[in-house]
Amino acid sequence: MATSRDILLDWLRNAHAMEVQAEEMFKSQARRIEHYPPLRERIERHLIETREQQAMLAQCLKQLGAEPSALKEIGARFMAMGQSLFQVASTDEVVKGAVLACSFKHMEIAVYRALAAAAKTAGENDVVRICETILPQEQAMADWLDQHLPELVEQYLVRAELPSVSAKR
Amino acid sequence: MATSRDILLDWLRNAHAMEVQAEEMFKSQARRIEHYPPLRERIERHLIETREQQAMLAQCLKQLGAEPSALKEIGARFMAMGQSLFQVASTDEVVKGAVLACSFKHMEIAVYRALAAAAKTAGENDVVRICETILPQEQAMADWLDQHLPELVEQYLVRAELPSVSAKR
Repeated sequence: MATSRDILLDWLRNAHAMEVQAEEMFKSQARRIEHYPPLRERIERHLIETREQQAMLAQCLKQLGAEPSALKEIGARFMAMGQSLFQVASTDEVVKGAVLACSFKHMEIAVYRALAAAAKTAGENDVVRICETILPQEQAMADWLDQHLPELVEQYLVRAELPSVSAKR
Repeated sequence: MATSRDILLDWLRNAHAMEVQAEEMFKSQARRIEHYPPLRERIERHLIETREQQAMLAQCLKQLGAEPSALKEIGARFMAMGQSLFQVASTDEVVKGAVLACSFKHMEIAVYRALAAAAKTAGENDVVRICETILPQEQAMADWLDQHLPELVEQYLVRAELPSVSAKR
Protein backbone atom coordinates (compact mmCIF):
# COMPACT_ATOMS: atom_id res chain seq x y z
CA MET A 1 0.00 0.00 0.00
CA ALA A 2 1.44 3.35 -1.08
CA THR A 3 -0.02 6.83 -1.56
CA SER A 4 0.04 8.55 -4.95
CA ARG A 5 2.47 11.01 -3.38
CA ASP A 6 4.94 8.25 -2.36
CA ILE A 7 4.81 6.84 -5.87
CA LEU A 8 5.19 10.31 -7.39
CA LEU A 9 8.33 10.98 -5.33
CA ASP A 10 9.79 7.61 -6.30
CA TRP A 11 9.13 8.27 -9.99
CA LEU A 12 10.58 11.78 -9.74
CA ARG A 13 13.78 10.28 -8.29
CA ASN A 14 13.81 7.71 -11.09
CA ALA A 15 13.38 10.49 -13.67
CA HIS A 16 16.30 12.40 -12.15
CA ALA A 17 18.52 9.28 -12.24
CA MET A 18 17.42 8.67 -15.84
CA GLU A 19 18.60 12.17 -16.81
CA VAL A 20 21.95 11.46 -15.11
CA GLN A 21 22.16 8.34 -17.25
CA ALA A 22 21.17 10.32 -20.35
CA GLU A 23 23.91 12.87 -19.66
CA GLU A 24 26.61 10.19 -19.23
CA MET A 25 25.50 8.33 -22.34
CA PHE A 26 25.23 11.38 -24.59
CA LYS A 27 28.47 12.89 -23.27
CA SER A 28 30.29 9.70 -24.18
CA GLN A 29 28.61 9.59 -27.62
CA ALA A 30 29.38 13.26 -28.40
CA ARG A 31 33.01 12.84 -27.33
CA ARG A 32 33.53 9.82 -29.56
CA ILE A 33 31.73 10.84 -32.79
CA GLU A 34 34.31 11.96 -35.40
CA HIS A 35 32.85 11.69 -38.88
CA TYR A 36 29.17 12.54 -38.33
CA PRO A 37 29.19 16.20 -37.20
CA PRO A 38 25.42 16.92 -37.49
CA LEU A 39 24.69 14.06 -35.06
CA ARG A 40 27.39 15.25 -32.65
CA GLU A 41 26.06 18.83 -32.75
CA ARG A 42 22.46 17.74 -32.15
CA ILE A 43 23.56 15.61 -29.18
CA GLU A 44 25.59 18.51 -27.76
CA ARG A 45 22.54 20.77 -27.98
CA HIS A 46 20.45 18.14 -26.24
CA LEU A 47 23.06 17.77 -23.48
CA ILE A 48 22.34 21.36 -22.43
CA GLU A 49 18.62 20.54 -22.20
CA THR A 50 19.41 17.33 -20.29
CA ARG A 51 21.30 19.28 -17.60
CA GLU A 52 18.45 21.78 -17.33
CA GLN A 53 16.00 18.90 -16.96
CA GLN A 54 18.10 17.45 -14.12
CA ALA A 55 18.02 20.84 -12.37
CA MET A 56 14.23 21.16 -12.82
CA LEU A 57 13.64 17.69 -11.38
CA ALA A 58 16.00 18.31 -8.43
CA GLN A 59 14.22 21.59 -7.71
CA CYS A 60 10.87 19.86 -7.91
CA LEU A 61 11.97 17.17 -5.44
CA LYS A 62 13.23 19.88 -3.09
CA GLN A 63 9.87 21.69 -3.21
CA LEU A 64 8.18 18.43 -2.26
CA GLY A 65 10.56 18.03 0.71
CA ALA A 66 12.63 15.27 -0.89
CA GLU A 67 15.89 14.98 -2.80
CA PRO A 68 17.50 12.96 -5.60
CA SER A 69 18.64 9.46 -4.65
CA ALA A 70 22.44 8.98 -4.74
CA LEU A 71 21.90 5.23 -5.00
CA LYS A 72 19.73 5.52 -8.09
CA GLU A 73 22.29 7.86 -9.65
CA ILE A 74 25.10 5.37 -9.12
CA GLY A 75 22.94 2.76 -10.84
CA ALA A 76 22.29 5.18 -13.70
CA ARG A 77 25.99 5.89 -14.19
CA PHE A 78 26.72 2.19 -14.14
CA MET A 79 24.04 1.50 -16.78
CA ALA A 80 25.38 4.29 -18.99
CA MET A 81 28.88 2.82 -18.71
CA GLY A 82 27.59 -0.58 -19.80
CA GLN A 83 25.80 0.96 -22.77
CA SER A 84 28.94 2.85 -23.82
CA LEU A 85 31.13 -0.25 -23.60
CA PHE A 86 28.65 -2.30 -25.62
CA GLN A 87 28.55 0.38 -28.28
CA VAL A 88 32.28 1.14 -28.45
CA ALA A 89 32.95 -2.57 -29.07
CA SER A 90 30.96 -2.45 -32.35
CA THR A 91 32.32 -1.61 -35.80
CA ASP A 92 28.99 0.15 -36.47
CA GLU A 93 29.22 2.18 -33.26
CA VAL A 94 27.59 5.30 -34.72
CA VAL A 95 24.49 3.43 -35.95
CA LYS A 96 24.12 1.37 -32.74
CA GLY A 97 24.47 4.63 -30.80
CA ALA A 98 21.70 6.30 -32.80
CA VAL A 99 19.40 3.28 -32.35
CA LEU A 100 20.12 3.25 -28.61
CA ALA A 101 19.47 6.99 -28.45
CA CYS A 102 16.06 6.54 -30.20
CA SER A 103 15.12 3.83 -27.75
CA PHE A 104 16.32 5.87 -24.76
CA LYS A 105 14.39 8.97 -25.88
CA HIS A 106 11.18 6.98 -26.18
CA MET A 107 11.78 5.48 -22.72
CA GLU A 108 12.08 9.05 -21.39
CA ILE A 109 8.88 10.08 -23.19
CA ALA A 110 7.01 7.15 -21.60
CA VAL A 111 8.49 7.95 -18.17
CA TYR A 112 7.38 11.61 -18.34
CA ARG A 113 3.91 10.64 -19.55
CA ALA A 114 3.56 8.21 -16.64
CA LEU A 115 4.93 10.85 -14.26
CA ALA A 116 2.47 13.46 -15.57
CA ALA A 117 -0.45 11.07 -15.08
CA ALA A 118 0.68 10.34 -11.50
CA ALA A 119 1.18 14.07 -10.79
CA LYS A 120 -2.35 14.84 -12.03
CA THR A 121 -3.79 12.19 -9.70
CA ALA A 122 -1.74 13.52 -6.77
CA GLY A 123 -2.81 17.12 -7.59
CA GLU A 124 0.84 18.24 -7.98
CA ASN A 125 0.47 20.79 -10.75
CA ASP A 126 4.11 21.94 -10.62
CA VAL A 127 5.20 18.43 -11.54
CA VAL A 128 2.62 18.34 -14.36
CA ARG A 129 4.05 21.62 -15.70
CA ILE A 130 7.65 20.33 -15.57
CA CYS A 131 6.61 17.22 -17.50
CA GLU A 132 4.91 19.44 -20.07
CA THR A 133 8.14 21.48 -20.43
CA ILE A 134 10.41 18.45 -20.79
CA LEU A 135 8.19 16.29 -23.03
CA PRO A 136 8.46 18.47 -26.19
CA GLN A 137 12.27 18.60 -25.78
CA GLU A 138 12.47 14.81 -25.62
CA GLN A 139 10.02 14.47 -28.50
CA ALA A 140 12.06 16.91 -30.64
CA MET A 141 15.24 14.92 -30.02
CA ALA A 142 13.43 11.63 -30.80
CA ASP A 143 12.00 13.13 -34.02
CA TRP A 144 15.41 14.43 -35.10
CA LEU A 145 16.95 10.99 -34.59
CA ASP A 146 14.07 9.28 -36.43
CA GLN A 147 14.35 11.66 -39.37
CA HIS A 148 18.13 11.46 -39.69
CA LEU A 149 18.56 7.72 -39.19
CA PRO A 150 18.27 6.62 -42.88
CA GLU A 151 20.75 9.33 -43.94
CA LEU A 152 23.17 8.31 -41.16
CA VAL A 153 22.97 4.68 -42.30
CA GLU A 154 23.71 5.67 -45.90
CA GLN A 155 26.72 7.73 -44.84
CA TYR A 156 27.93 4.87 -42.68
CA LEU A 157 27.63 2.35 -45.53
CA VAL A 158 29.48 4.63 -47.98
CA ARG A 159 32.35 5.09 -45.52
CA ALA A 160 32.39 1.37 -44.57
CA GLU A 161 32.97 0.35 -48.20
CA LEU A 162 35.91 2.74 -48.71
CA PRO A 163 39.31 1.07 -48.10
CA SER A 164 41.28 3.60 -46.04
CA VAL A 165 38.46 5.47 -44.34
CA SER A 166 37.00 4.85 -40.88
CA ALA A 167 33.22 4.52 -40.64
CA LYS A 168 32.90 3.39 -37.02
CA ARG A 169 32.28 6.71 -35.30
CA MET B 1 36.29 -2.29 -44.62
CA ALA B 2 33.01 -4.18 -45.11
CA THR B 3 30.53 -4.49 -47.98
CA SER B 4 26.92 -3.35 -47.61
CA ARG B 5 25.99 -7.03 -47.91
CA ASP B 6 28.22 -8.02 -44.94
CA ILE B 7 26.66 -5.27 -42.87
CA LEU B 8 23.16 -6.22 -44.01
CA LEU B 9 23.68 -9.86 -42.94
CA ASP B 10 25.05 -8.74 -39.57
CA TRP B 11 22.05 -6.46 -39.00
CA LEU B 12 19.61 -9.18 -40.08
CA ARG B 13 21.18 -11.51 -37.48
CA ASN B 14 20.89 -8.74 -34.89
CA ALA B 15 17.22 -8.21 -35.80
CA HIS B 16 16.56 -11.93 -35.40
CA ALA B 17 18.24 -11.97 -31.97
CA MET B 18 16.24 -8.86 -31.02
CA GLU B 19 12.99 -10.69 -31.81
CA VAL B 20 14.15 -13.62 -29.67
CA GLN B 21 14.71 -11.10 -26.88
CA ALA B 22 11.28 -9.53 -27.54
CA GLU B 23 9.63 -12.95 -27.31
CA GLU B 24 11.31 -13.80 -23.99
CA MET B 25 10.54 -10.41 -22.52
CA PHE B 26 6.88 -10.31 -23.59
CA LYS B 27 6.29 -13.96 -22.66
CA SER B 28 7.51 -13.21 -19.15
CA GLN B 29 5.37 -10.04 -18.97
CA ALA B 30 2.22 -11.76 -20.24
CA ARG B 31 2.69 -14.67 -17.80
CA ARG B 32 3.05 -12.34 -14.81
CA ILE B 33 0.32 -9.74 -15.44
CA GLU B 34 -2.71 -10.47 -13.24
CA HIS B 35 -4.80 -7.35 -12.78
CA TYR B 36 -4.41 -5.56 -16.14
CA PRO B 37 -6.06 -7.90 -18.67
CA PRO B 38 -6.16 -5.51 -21.69
CA LEU B 39 -2.36 -5.10 -21.49
CA ARG B 40 -1.87 -8.87 -21.18
CA GLU B 41 -4.15 -9.53 -24.16
CA ARG B 42 -2.40 -6.96 -26.35
CA ILE B 43 1.00 -8.45 -25.48
CA GLU B 44 -0.28 -11.96 -26.23
CA ARG B 45 -1.48 -10.79 -29.65
CA HIS B 46 1.88 -9.19 -30.30
CA LEU B 47 3.69 -12.39 -29.28
CA ILE B 48 2.13 -14.14 -32.27
CA GLU B 49 3.45 -11.39 -34.57
CA THR B 50 6.86 -11.58 -32.88
CA ARG B 51 7.17 -15.30 -33.68
CA GLU B 52 6.12 -14.66 -37.30
CA GLN B 53 8.74 -11.90 -37.53
CA GLN B 54 11.43 -14.30 -36.28
CA ALA B 55 10.40 -16.80 -38.96
CA MET B 56 10.46 -14.12 -41.70
CA LEU B 57 13.95 -12.99 -40.67
CA ALA B 58 15.27 -16.57 -40.47
CA GLN B 59 13.85 -17.29 -43.92
CA CYS B 60 15.41 -14.11 -45.26
CA LEU B 61 18.84 -15.06 -43.87
CA LYS B 62 18.48 -18.51 -45.46
CA GLN B 63 17.72 -16.98 -48.86
CA LEU B 64 20.90 -14.91 -48.56
CA GLY B 65 22.92 -18.05 -47.76
CA ALA B 66 23.30 -17.28 -44.05
CA GLU B 67 21.58 -18.25 -40.81
CA PRO B 68 20.67 -16.82 -37.39
CA SER B 69 23.54 -16.58 -34.90
CA ALA B 70 23.19 -18.87 -31.87
CA LEU B 71 25.64 -16.65 -29.98
CA LYS B 72 23.57 -13.52 -30.51
CA GLU B 73 20.47 -15.43 -29.44
CA ILE B 74 22.07 -16.50 -26.17
CA GLY B 75 22.97 -12.85 -25.55
CA ALA B 76 19.39 -11.85 -26.32
CA ARG B 77 17.94 -14.39 -23.89
CA PHE B 78 20.37 -13.25 -21.23
CA MET B 79 19.40 -9.58 -21.74
CA ALA B 80 15.69 -10.46 -21.55
CA MET B 81 16.31 -12.34 -18.29
CA GLY B 82 18.06 -9.29 -16.83
CA GLN B 83 15.16 -7.06 -17.86
CA SER B 84 12.63 -9.42 -16.30
CA LEU B 85 14.53 -9.63 -13.01
CA PHE B 86 14.87 -5.85 -12.84
CA GLN B 87 11.16 -5.45 -13.43
CA VAL B 88 9.94 -8.22 -11.12
CA ALA B 89 11.89 -6.63 -8.25
CA SER B 90 9.76 -3.45 -8.48
CA THR B 91 6.52 -2.73 -6.66
CA ASP B 92 5.37 -0.89 -9.81
CA GLU B 93 6.27 -3.83 -12.05
CA VAL B 94 3.35 -3.31 -14.47
CA VAL B 95 4.23 0.37 -15.14
CA LYS B 96 7.98 -0.31 -15.45
CA GLY B 97 7.12 -3.14 -17.82
CA ALA B 98 4.99 -0.87 -20.01
CA VAL B 99 7.73 1.80 -20.09
CA LEU B 100 10.32 -0.84 -20.99
CA ALA B 101 8.01 -2.19 -23.71
CA CYS B 102 7.59 1.34 -25.21
CA SER B 103 11.34 1.78 -25.26
CA PHE B 104 11.92 -1.68 -26.74
CA LYS B 105 9.31 -1.14 -29.48
CA HIS B 106 10.97 2.11 -30.52
CA MET B 107 14.37 0.37 -30.57
CA GLU B 108 12.87 -2.20 -32.92
CA ILE B 109 11.38 0.52 -35.12
CA ALA B 110 14.80 2.21 -35.39
CA VAL B 111 16.49 -1.14 -36.11
CA TYR B 112 14.05 -1.97 -38.94
CA ARG B 113 14.39 1.52 -40.42
CA ALA B 114 18.20 1.20 -40.40
CA LEU B 115 17.91 -2.31 -41.86
CA ALA B 116 15.58 -1.08 -44.63
CA ALA B 117 18.03 1.71 -45.53
CA ALA B 118 20.91 -0.81 -45.69
CA ALA B 119 18.82 -3.24 -47.76
CA LYS B 120 17.95 -0.50 -50.25
CA THR B 121 21.65 0.34 -50.65
CA ALA B 122 22.53 -3.35 -51.08
CA GLY B 123 19.68 -3.79 -53.62
CA GLU B 124 18.07 -6.53 -51.50
CA ASN B 125 14.40 -5.85 -52.16
CA ASP B 126 13.13 -8.92 -50.29
CA VAL B 127 14.66 -7.52 -47.11
CA VAL B 128 13.12 -4.11 -47.81
CA ARG B 129 9.71 -5.79 -48.16
CA ILE B 130 10.10 -7.72 -44.90
CA CYS B 131 10.98 -4.49 -43.08
CA GLU B 132 7.91 -2.84 -44.59
CA THR B 133 5.77 -5.75 -43.32
CA ILE B 134 7.20 -5.69 -39.80
CA LEU B 135 7.40 -1.92 -39.25
CA PRO B 136 3.60 -1.27 -39.12
CA GLN B 137 3.21 -4.14 -36.62
CA GLU B 138 5.87 -2.63 -34.34
CA GLN B 139 4.40 0.84 -34.78
CA ALA B 140 0.89 -0.40 -33.92
CA MET B 141 2.18 -2.02 -30.72
CA ALA B 142 4.13 1.15 -29.81
CA ASP B 143 1.04 3.30 -30.47
CA TRP B 144 -1.16 1.03 -28.35
CA LEU B 145 1.29 1.24 -25.45
CA ASP B 146 1.59 5.04 -25.82
CA GLN B 147 -2.20 5.46 -25.85
CA HIS B 148 -2.89 3.18 -22.90
CA LEU B 149 -0.05 4.31 -20.61
CA PRO B 150 -1.91 7.14 -18.77
CA GLU B 151 -4.91 4.85 -18.15
CA LEU B 152 -2.60 2.07 -16.89
CA VAL B 153 -0.93 4.51 -14.49
CA GLU B 154 -4.32 5.64 -13.15
CA GLN B 155 -5.43 2.04 -12.59
CA TYR B 156 -2.12 1.27 -10.90
CA LEU B 157 -2.43 4.28 -8.56
CA VAL B 158 -6.00 3.40 -7.61
CA ARG B 159 -5.02 -0.18 -6.75
CA ALA B 160 -1.82 0.94 -4.95
CA GLU B 161 -3.84 3.09 -2.53
CA LEU B 162 -6.27 0.31 -1.60
CA PRO B 163 -5.24 -1.57 1.55
CA SER B 164 -5.79 -5.25 0.70
CA VAL B 165 -5.37 -5.18 -3.05
CA SER B 166 -2.26 -5.90 -5.06
CA ALA B 167 -1.26 -3.32 -7.70
CA LYS B 168 2.14 -4.69 -8.67
CA ARG B 169 1.21 -6.77 -11.73
